[in-house]
Amino acid sequence: MWPEVFEQLVVKNDSKIIFLVLDGVGGLAMEGKGGTELQVARTPNLDALAAKSSCGVFDLVYPGITPGSGPGHFALFGYDPLTCNIGRGVLEAAGIEFKLTGKDVAIRVNFATADQQGNLIDRRAGRLDTEENKRVCAKLRQRIHLHAMGVDVFIEPVKEHRAAVVFRGENLSGDLEDTDPQITGVPPKAPKATSPEGERMIPLVTAFLEQAHKILADEPKANTMLLRGFAKFHPYKTMTERYGLKCLAVANYPMYRGIANILGMELNPITENIKTQFEAVGENFKKYDFFFVHVKYTDSRGEDGDFDAKVKVIEEVDSLLPILTDLHPDVMVVTADHSTPAVLKAHSWHPVPVLLHAKYVRVDEVKAFNEIACLAGALGQQPMVNLMPLVLANALRLQKYGA
Amino acid sequence: MWPEVFEQLVVKNDSKIIFLVLDGVGGLAMEGKGGTELQVARTPNLDALAAKSSCGVFDLVYPGITPGSGPGHFALFGYDPLTCNIGRGVLEAAGIEFKLTGKDVAIRVNFATADQQGNLIDRRAGRLDTEENKRVCAKLRQRIHLHAMGVDVFIEPVKEHRAAVVFRGENLSGDLEDTDPQITGVPPKAPKATSPEGERMIPLVTAFLEQAHKILADEPKANTMLLRGFAKFHPYKTMTERYGLKCLAVANYPMYRGIANILGMELNPITENIKTQFEAVGENFKKYDFFFVHVKYTDSRGEDGDFDAKVKVIEEVDSLLPILTDLHPDVMVVTADHSTPAVLKAHSWHPVPVLLHAKYVRVDEVKAFNEIACLAGALGQQPMVNLMPLVLANALRLQKYGA
Repeated sequence: MWPEVFEQLVVKNDSKIIFLVLDGVGGLAMEGKGGTELQVARTPNLDALAAKSSCGVFDLVYPGITPGSGPGHFALFGYDPLTCNIGRGVLEAAGIEFKLTGKDVAIRVNFATADQQGNLIDRRAGRLDTEENKRVCAKLRQRIHLHAMGVDVFIEPVKEHRAAVVFRGENLSGDLEDTDPQITGVPPKAPKATSPEGERMIPLVTAFLEQAHKILADEPKANTMLLRGFAKFHPYKTMTERYGLKCLAVANYPMYRGIANILGMELNPITENIKTQFEAVGENFKKYDFFFVHVKYTDSRGEDGDFDAKVKVIEEVDSLLPILTDLHPDVMVVTADHSTPAVLKAHSWHPVPVLLHAKYVRVDEVKAFNEIACLAGALGQQPMVNLMPLVLANALRLQKYGA
Repeated sequence: MWPEVFEQLVVKNDSKIIFLVLDGVGGLAMEGKGGTELQVARTPNLDALAAKSSCGVFDLVYPGITPGSGPGHFALFGYDPLTCNIGRGVLEAAGIEFKLTGKDVAIRVNFATADQQGNLIDRRAGRLDTEENKRVCAKLRQRIHLHAMGVDVFIEPVKEHRAAVVFRGENLSGDLEDTDPQITGVPPKAPKATSPEGERMIPLVTAFLEQAHKILADEPKANTMLLRGFAKFHPYKTMTERYGLKCLAVANYPMYRGIANILGMELNPITENIKTQFEAVGENFKKYDFFFVHVKYTDSRGEDGDFDAKVKVIEEVDSLLPILTDLHPDVMVVTADHSTPAVLKAHSWHPVPVLLHAKYVRVDEVKAFNEIACLAGALGQQPMVNLMPLVLANALRLQKYGA
């Protein structure tokens, strides 16, 4: 792990760092395709950049471990993914830019439809219209009160049938199981604790659900709710505090905006496509030190199992790459938060290629940006949490250690 | 880190180990040169040795971290550089072979010249003649007394305007800032603590300075002093205690002699050049198990930014290498304590090549001793603190672990 003592070595300067994350870009060969998605894609710009960079193949969390997007990104930004594993509820709340505090427990909510006996008919309330969701949340917010139990409650719509609930109070715990039974024809599960601290939450959660059910009773679709991903929020030192970097996140999807938000980055407004994302870096180039650019579609096409479509996204990124490289950042990184091989249709445990370009990198013999070529790179194979120190060193933002 | 449990596996035998450290030899490609310093240098002997060795590329402290010479050498000798970071004052005192104890705080001293108002005119007292330095130190030593405060004080000349001061007493602390203001036209800074333990040192340091200033008042040049690098000495287990090795250091520069001294090595008298250093190994070959041979000039020429001169030093080492290899040591190591690329004119964070030759190494496909070729080596990329266990294993000085 990136030892805290090293944060004392951080100095500031005017260098610019572009950190391009191609979500899930790591892949696997699929029969008949002739290699992994990155090997098959024609990527002249990435390959030319690799040829004058240091490359490597990094494990996000630990060899053999398949990272969720949370741990993957924490590792990318130099936060130990084993000690900084944030819960799903926190990611949901952060993703809608809710400002969490150390007193908060956040929960993902699915609005759902139950029959008169309370058995679930639809776990997503017919994929509720987002406007309906907002109305229902406002109604709940107005009428639910947990002040008597010493707790403030926040109810925020997300999208379709999804919302976020945040409890704020002293000594709250996120050690509770989901109430979602994952099937219809049964009622939601009763709240259940996974620790003695969680046990103390049962009266609070029960009171919340009782009030909510009364308020939602007359709703045609959203007449019940399922609580998932209970998570206590533990604030982290921001990247500004740790590295002295003023950071901009150019990410269009809630989870990644949420992570960036938690780590103290400012959020660029959501843009239309990859091209406008890349252009946003140029438009803000003077105002920030560090640009986290998150491309989602490599992962999405991998999850779809669509090898060719994932190759196309990679080729699109490659064709747009000059928008970033023409800015001549002092440090340019291209990598991923995990692999999503089309052949697996899911995140996987395979390490990801890393490309690090800067004035003082040791140029190795790697001439292509893919999982196999990068094995011969000067960065070798390491834990991803090591990448940020390397980035800071190459930005000349780390002083010498020891006499 | 080299876990202490392994020290229990150490056994003794008659094997001989030569550990050749080319200070700062790791480099970077410089435009128009065609590679790094090691790649450009003609090194037939090193390359032939690499071809029958295991090679690798090791990080001294941590990826991205630029090591000072202290942490670099501690890692080379199997001491965790994160927990064994010794201060500059200790290195200075050890470098003049002062025998430090666990009760000591060591300080680097610059003799300096101040005007009648006490403002600094020359922070180096006109680079005082070393003989003058000795006279001034003797005068101070004779007349300064801190016995009333329960402290012995030692004042030792180093070279030119530099001296070392050691306070010896109970519960002393090195948590103090330098009194050197780094500029002229102002007086030296007052002693200032960086911790409550350091706070307790203020009366002692103030009394020391008051006495010293009275004694130095009639000096034409050295009429004041600047205190730098306050450091408490924490004794380490020696290499003899840890590894059962009787060690000789063949190093000509004070800092490296100091480190060797701290780790329990005996010090060969200072020799004239690299050739006489290498010859000293042969002359003492029967008397020791482990030979630390330190070549300084690779680092010096890197610090000068003189790529070609660094290449020349590497070629000189290569041409002299048979003096060492003809001794047929059981284990021969060639590596560095850090990189000093000429293009950076300073220590850098880049890992260093390692060559390990012994009877039972697994010979890899590396046929040249440089930063890029060694990436393909059997030792891979690892933390440098792992090297000593590999050396001991290859010397057949480590027993099996576990049943």
